Amino acid sequence: MNTFGDKWAFTSFGESHGRAIGGVLDGVPAGLHINIDLIRQELDRRRGVTGDGLPVTGVSPRAVREPDEVEWLSGVIEIKNEELKIKNESLVTLGTPIAFIIRNRDARPEDYEWLRHTYRTGHADRVYEQKYGIRDHRGGGRASARETAARVVAGCIAKQQLAQQGISIHASLIQVGSETDPTRFSDTIARYQQDGDSIGGIIECTITGLPIGTGEPIFDKLQAHLAFAIMSINACKGFEYGTGFGGVTQPGSAINHISGGIAGGISDGTDITFRCVFKPTASTPKAFEELKIKNYELKMNKGRHDACVATRAVPVVEAMTALALVNLI
Amino acid sequence: MNTFGDKWAFTSFGESHGRAIGGVLDGVPAGLHINIDLIRQELDRRRGVTGDGLPVTGVSPRAVREPDEVEWLSGVIEIKNEELKIKNESLVTLGTPIAFIIRNRDARPEDYEWLRHTYRTGHADRVYEQKYGIRDHRGGGRASARETAARVVAGCIAKQQLAQQGISIHASLIQVGSETDPTRFSDTIARYQQDGDSIGGIIECTITGLPIGTGEPIFDKLQAHLAFAIMSINACKGFEYGTGFGGVTQPGSAINHISGGIAGGISDGTDITFRCVFKPTASTPKAFEELKIKNYELKMNKGRHDACVATRAVPVVEAMTALALVNLI
Amino acid sequence: MNTFGDKWAFTSFGESHGRAIGGVLDGVPAGLHINIDLIRQELDRRRGVTGDGLPVTGVSPRAVREPDEVEWLSGVIEIKNEELKIKNESLVTLGTPIAFIIRNRDARPEDYEWLRHTYRTGHADRVYEQKYGIRDHRGGGRASARETAARVVAGCIAKQQLAQQGISIHASLIQVGSETDPTRFSDTIARYQQDGDSIGGIIECTITGLPIGTGEPIFDKLQAHLAFAIMSINACKGFEYGTGFGGVTQPGSAINHISGGIAGGISDGTDITFRCVFKPTASTPKAFEELKIKNYELKMNKGRHDACVATRAVPVVEAMTALALVNLI
Amino acid sequence: MNTFGDKWAFTSFGESHGRAIGGVLDGVPAGLHINIDLIRQELDRRRGVTGDGLPVTGVSPRAVREPDEVEWLSGVIEIKNEELKIKNESLVTLGTPIAFIIRNRDARPEDYEWLRHTYRTGHADRVYEQKYGIRDHRGGGRASARETAARVVAGCIAKQQLAQQGISIHASLIQVGSETDPTRFSDTIARYQQDGDSIGGIIECTITGLPIGTGEPIFDKLQAHLAFAIMSINACKGFEYGTGFGGVTQPGSAINHISGGIAGGISDGTDITFRCVFKPTASTPKAFEELKIKNYELKMNKGRHDACVATRAVPVVEAMTALALVNLI
Repeated sequence: MNTFGDKWAFTSFGESHGRAIGGVLDGVPAGLHINIDLIRQELDRRRGVTGDGLPVTGVSPRAVREPDEVEWLSGVIEIKNEELKIKNESLVTLGTPIAFIIRNRDARPEDYEWLRHTYRTGHADRVYEQKYGIRDHRGGGRASARETAARVVAGCIAKQQLAQQGISIHASLIQVGSETDPTRFSDTIARYQQDGDSIGGIIECTITGLPIGTGEPIFDKLQAHLAFAIMSINACKGFEYGTGFGGVTQPGSAINHISGGIAGGISDGTDITFRCVFKPTASTPKAFEELKIKNYELKMNKGRHDACVATRAVPVVEAMTALALVNLI
Repeated sequence: MNTFGDKWAFTSFGESHGRAIGGVLDGVPAGLHINIDLIRQELDRRRGVTGDGLPVTGVSPRAVREPDEVEWLSGVIEIKNEELKIKNESLVTLGTPIAFIIRNRDARPEDYEWLRHTYRTGHADRVYEQKYGIRDHRGGGRASARETAARVVAGCIAKQQLAQQGISIHASLIQVGSETDPTRFSDTIARYQQDGDSIGGIIECTITGLPIGTGEPIFDKLQAHLAFAIMSINACKGFEYGTGFGGVTQPGSAINHISGGIAGGISDGTDITFRCVFKPTASTPKAFEELKIKNYELKMNKGRHDACVATRAVPVVEAMTALALVNLI
Repeated sequence: MNTFGDKWAFTSFGESHGRAIGGVLDGVPAGLHINIDLIRQELDRRRGVTGDGLPVTGVSPRAVREPDEVEWLSGVIEIKNEELKIKNESLVTLGTPIAFIIRNRDARPEDYEWLRHTYRTGHADRVYEQKYGIRDHRGGGRASARETAARVVAGCIAKQQLAQQGISIHASLIQVGSETDPTRFSDTIARYQQDGDSIGGIIECTITGLPIGTGEPIFDKLQAHLAFAIMSINACKGFEYGTGFGGVTQPGSAINHISGGIAGGISDGTDITFRCVFKPTASTPKAFEELKIKNYELKMNKGRHDACVATRAVPVVEAMTALALVNLI
Repeated sequence: MNTFGDKWAFTSFGESHGRAIGGVLDGVPAGLHINIDLIRQELDRRRGVTGDGLPVTGVSPRAVREPDEVEWLSGVIEIKNEELKIKNESLVTLGTPIAFIIRNRDARPEDYEWLRHTYRTGHADRVYEQKYGIRDHRGGGRASARETAARVVAGCIAKQQLAQQGISIHASLIQVGSETDPTRFSDTIARYQQDGDSIGGIIECTITGLPIGTGEPIFDKLQAHLAFAIMSINACKGFEYGTGFGGVTQPGSAINHISGGIAGGISDGTDITFRCVFKPTASTPKAFEELKIKNYELKMNKGRHDACVATRAVPVVEAMTALALVNLI
């Protein structure tokens, strides 16, 4: 339900406008040194903030305002031993469950009061109410993308474990709308934002250094677990690897040498490259205008929406990839 | 590992050239009437045999020769009660695990003897040997697509349960190579077969009648479970639903009304449509020629390969969709 | 690892002398009203404090000093709606994961500094160090019985859900040492405490109102799940139900009518009664004296040990029983 | 439901009077040599037949008549390679799921026809019917102890894996009724059998060679998993280890040095000894007489009941212990 994986079991909790979001990561071996700076950087990428603290084009105001400070509750101890020459910011895992929370400092449930009796197009508001009989109208509750901050923390711990084994994960945005030149992504997004509209994007992710043998031959194929992890991210509409959908027009003789890094569900020792697509944000001024929601401009100023969520999904893709891998290796 | 799902837990077993393949389906409620004819029809679709017993274009000889007769070992009893007016071919479930086997009548391990020290391009031969330290060279062992026959049996039971709840699943081939006109698929496949080559295809699947509320909001999103189920099928290289990859060029204002039947990971009561792509078969005469394998023609005559596996994957896609759904509902 | 159950999945976290202990309870349906007073009462029973705030005989000083205040992080909202006439202390569940923490206010890691290079008899110190390679010497870390406070919180929510279904769970101490008269338990425990020694006890638990049909016939028998839940409590050395060990001397003709409330692994609609035994606390002044640990008196004054842990295990037995049941029903 | 464990996942299937019982054991590493003779011996112990093929005192006729021949369907290959000097009866695992069946040769559903509308005291007949809505009246269906034959096969494979790691499991009957002298067990059982009655027994099991570190500190304690495994055996009413229930009368100072092989839920490197109690068989001539079932003698002649099931439970206790251990190590 809210747990991903069984070997490195990650349980996520917290409502977008409740007291805190957070997670418990169980199964991390004792003695792993966690670099907290890396976690902070990943959270900033997800917030849509550059190293200089400036917002990336098209990012919602709330993301920037929320500092996303992690409070560590259990499973780690600070090590200040000079002999070990470990920096103060390092944590060492105890082998017990790592629990952490991120307080919702900018939670403004009152901003969503008008939504109490309104369902937003392209949102899960209505299905939630029908499924649970009760509705947390405050910014989507669990459905909010804010929940992905906890994934990024857990995924970054997983990435640090993988790095020790020589495995790295790198994702980047390769397409925004029809644009495939990364230097023009910022302009493209800005254009949609000015129109009160939104646009989707494609992210490509490469796994390097994964040894032969990860994945199982029948149901638990490596690609199936990667697809499960990636498709669990909000707004993701598709996953492909290797020759993907584009390969359909090519005969076997032309593309059979392309393994995509996986054979029979098991990693073959070469790089694995997959792509995933994120749809445009549903809640836009334009969408509200069509719905003839009164004072939508005011509401959008209060609201917290992105012109291109794919931008901020990049570290989440890496995080979920890392969590999938540590559960399979 | 070899089990799919936890509520309707399906465990698959059997090597392609061993004594039998089969499965155990646990969690099926007592009292479900199973129509055996439907199972036979689905197995024929997977074998690539039409209702008249004729092979579909481009299908390997073994598939046609194997009758795929199901032997029921447990979990069901035949009901011949005339009062209930149930046909002899009907089984009724007991609520206990349903175990079944399909004997490998056409198993010819000796045909694969030449493979003992050869690794086929595009096959999992090499990774298996490295992962397990032992290699079952007989036709791919577990990696063989023959294993999907057991999935079709289990999936067909799941489909019959879903049908009782008003839920139907329908998949079909919508593209072969560049061809999107189904009346021309047969010719297209025949052309690649004559060239000693192979070609991929795209399958589209629609779920109708699924009530609101299937799927969970965070990790266990409906689309994540569908992707996991579908990507676990041999040769599948991609999964998309709703606006999919094509939607990346469209602004939010143009496509936000398209839910694809799922909102926030939960079914919204409308039809769900997804697509998946299957790569061309790797083992082709052309591939063998390039590898300069001596007497490849002779071997291919003995070998058992398809020109377009997507054809036969259609019932497997339906089966895995059904198994994913019964585990989530 | 640190998760119990899959339908009502309870994940426990926190070290005894770290920042906090806590838990995440996932799978609780939306709309359940939680009475916080009941949770406070159960935590007091576990602390060994009576309704008047006085310590029960033989209870360690730390338990009494720790107020065990629960902070609710997610999954619940306070309802103050006067129309519904719900008290302020009521929480209503959202259907999302319920996360809570209990801060370790009386954590004194320095009290355990002397243990850094000492292993206590009857404690898990040594096996932990060998298993994890790292040791949290601060009061047993995860091995501390303090962890059971989180179980009591989660179990009390489960009990409130069960109560709505007419199911109640009641446990009590029925034997301390050789004493079976409850009015004499306090004196018996006091005597062992004065001797610097400790003593075990037997707890009996009765489940009332459980409808026919809970439990599965083969591995997931109701008694197997109850045994698993109860044997996971620190210091528990045995579990029996129905005729138990004592029944071995009776012929079938004398005891076959005693079902113990379970037939073939499934509840039969009658009351279920089971018993479990708790060993004496290992860390006692007497034990330390034997080990010739210097200044043991001083250390024991600082230390935090009980003369009869069975006393405080009673609400934990109820909590684990409740968690086992909500996962099976 | 019908699966035990997740690392060595054992799925059991088959009705007592259906076509076959059997199992699938998934997770066994490739390359394990399985001695089939040992499996046959264990099945004979469970049947209640000595090495000479003679029945043990008090065993039901069916057990003796059923040869319990195992047919291996998948996951193993016979190795006859003379270079490796492996006997013909050896199987080698492939790393794929091991499926096997035991045909019910002596299945006589007609013998149970009279039970169609009768519920036996001390049996699960009635709860099954209420739980499943359908009843397989043929000898208890899944509730029959015949299902334990599949456990013995899987457990014996687990024992052979453990033996390679230097771990051995040995169980024996230590008490029958009030009798604790094993040389008198046979006479004691015979006496109850002559009376048309039945009697319970206590089995003690010792695990030797288990290295430090098996088990997890919180819920997945080694003793909790052993208790779960053992309490899942038909007719088992209690489990205890180390000082057990008897230890309740002893002060901590007298018994704290007795670890029972487990500290804090984790094996401590010393032998682990546990005991479990089995109730008398419910279906006895005496019980039938009391129920005033007509012609009970005739029925009992046809029926298949034991005077002391504890005798035959010994190899089942070893099997379940082995399955618990391979899933935890």
